[in-house]
Amino acid sequence: MGLIEKTLSSIGPLDERAAASAQERLDSLTKPLGSLGCCEDLVRRYAAIRHDPTARLGRRAITVFVADHGIAAEGVSAYPKSVTLEMLRNIAGGGAAISVIARASGYHLAVTDVGVETDTSADPIPGVRYRRIGAGTANFLRGPAMSIAQVRAAIEAGIEAALTEAADGATLIGLGEMGIGNTTAAAAVLANLTEVEAARLVGRGTGLDDRGLQRKLEVVEAGLRLHRAARGDAIATLAALGGFEIAAMTGACLGAAAERIPVVVDGFIATAGAIAAERLRPGLHQHLFFGHRSAERGHAAVLEAIGARPILDLDIRLGEGVGAALAMKLIEAALLLFHEMATFASAGVSGRSR
Amino acid sequence: MGLIEKTLSSIGPLDERAAASAQERLDSLTKPLGSLGCCEDLVRRYAAIRHDPTARLGRRAITVFVADHGIAAEGVSAYPKSVTLEMLRNIAGGGAAISVIARASGYHLAVTDVGVETDTSADPIPGVRYRRIGAGTANFLRGPAMSIAQVRAAIEAGIEAALTEAADGATLIGLGEMGIGNTTAAAAVLANLTEVEAARLVGRGTGLDDRGLQRKLEVVEAGLRLHRAARGDAIATLAALGGFEIAAMTGACLGAAAERIPVVVDGFIATAGAIAAERLRPGLHQHLFFGHRSAERGHAAVLEAIGARPILDLDIRLGEGVGAALAMKLIEAALLLFHEMATFASAGVSGRSR
Repeated sequence: MGLIEKTLSSIGPLDERAAASAQERLDSLTKPLGSLGCCEDLVRRYAAIRHDPTARLGRRAITVFVADHGIAAEGVSAYPKSVTLEMLRNIAGGGAAISVIARASGYHLAVTDVGVETDTSADPIPGVRYRRIGAGTANFLRGPAMSIAQVRAAIEAGIEAALTEAADGATLIGLGEMGIGNTTAAAAVLANLTEVEAARLVGRGTGLDDRGLQRKLEVVEAGLRLHRAARGDAIATLAALGGFEIAAMTGACLGAAAERIPVVVDGFIATAGAIAAERLRPGLHQHLFFGHRSAERGHAAVLEAIGARPILDLDIRLGEGVGAALAMKLIEAALLLFHEMATFASAGVSGRSR
Repeated sequence: MGLIEKTLSSIGPLDERAAASAQERLDSLTKPLGSLGCCEDLVRRYAAIRHDPTARLGRRAITVFVADHGIAAEGVSAYPKSVTLEMLRNIAGGGAAISVIARASGYHLAVTDVGVETDTSADPIPGVRYRRIGAGTANFLRGPAMSIAQVRAAIEAGIEAALTEAADGATLIGLGEMGIGNTTAAAAVLANLTEVEAARLVGRGTGLDDRGLQRKLEVVEAGLRLHRAARGDAIATLAALGGFEIAAMTGACLGAAAERIPVVVDGFIATAGAIAAERLRPGLHQHLFFGHRSAERGHAAVLEAIGARPILDLDIRLGEGVGAALAMKLIEAALLLFHEMATFASAGVSGRSR
């Protein structure tokens, strides 16, 4: 049995007794019943995923997967492909948005090169983990983006990243990515794995103009026609249309769920990885929090299709895990309230009169 | 000239040049143009309110005003009136939700008794400031809730609280409150000062059942009939239907704006204070951030009526400034990104290609 199958088989149900126990404590705290709203949902589900009624918070980690995309050759991005490697350096070097938030928040930041076009592993960038599946994917208009063996290797890289975080004591993992061209790949993957049509999934990415947007939609629709045999199959779809980082995020969702670690999914591209994980293991979404509703057009449509309510709605469309990291600050705050607020009994506060 | 008039006359326009300068820096950071969404709006407006293109963040403070309400005698709350004093002790003692968040976030927490029914000032509760305007307001079904002199004193208490924070170096102030019965007073004030009708403003507060909700609506409508002469006038409306803590929050909005300090308004009741401030000084809302959309029914209607987009939307309905404090974490994160992210030039990242 391979790592993927082993991981899938070890994902169990949530612990509803832990959730009920956490709610009991929430109801004893000095506040009107239910008045913390979504923060109470976050605490309850955190406890259920962790199988821990005390909802203890350990290490918080952000895992960012970086890769290049053959489809970028079709002119689907406002930025040149070289930006992927430049941003890999910037993230590892501390200057990117996610680096700044992770540093200030005490989140462990792991950055993995799963297939940037230029191979820097011989003269490694400090702080980067190398788990390269290839030198970028192939152009999905000319064949599959990658082989089935590569999909499996990328998913395994994601599982291993989650297992590493688990071994280091993480109890909450945020998922992010970087890769020029990856909103195109994510839109194609999501169109193939959900009922949402391509026209609602294709957006401006890093800032396409109207003409670029039209071109991008044509590229995605051509890809969907070419790879229609893969429709509905997560592994086949990731191979046909996906990206190494998207498949790695699929693996990270699975690995974290197997380790009972809640995952905070970032925006549009991370959601594509999460949806593929849900197809491999129906019900997996219960182990995930959706950090924010991205301004990238397709994200709202997908979240609606799966009935997910994101924690934040700030029109962010940056990737890297930034929306996830900001949402983690709220999850932390919710857990802090759960742990540190006084109870009606301890504070001598009267309960309801009617 | 009294303190209120002096404060009103010293509130100036925002600094649009500081905003433009901040946006220029935002555009130089290593991210797609505009991709931080609302976080960029927060930074730009913070710079404009502060008249500081560098958007330096100083001390962050939460100011909570606590008072009792005569209208509580009409059975409009799910909790007994004694809870106001009990929660005053709990907030000052560190066990309330706002105490927990402020402590963990390094926010200075100021708690002011502006009129709790029981006077504890002779044997003062540690950590409480006493600026009592009275022993709770009067029942607004039997006359005005307070005198015009009391409204002015309460507004002045709020102005002074803001001036104290300014003197201590605050550059961001969150506004919160506690007072059994105050969603009733806030709904009545808002119905009198906006075009939103009472039925859309009256909600369940701390958790009324259907019968209680109906009773509360009848109380508010009776109050509006009795005090219809005050309609549209902020001072007269606060006197007729308001609360000491609501008027104090009005004053805090004015005082902070005069000191060029952005205010983060909490939920429904704080918004009533803010709307009264806007009536006294049209345009004041530009100096305010709305921290969250409360689950209390009327809040969404009021925010929509004034065209405000709240930072968070988490179904919180707790008061105390909790929604404001959580939103402040995001404002801080936005400013941190502004200050610490690398620029395209410093990180050697390529700009747009098309």
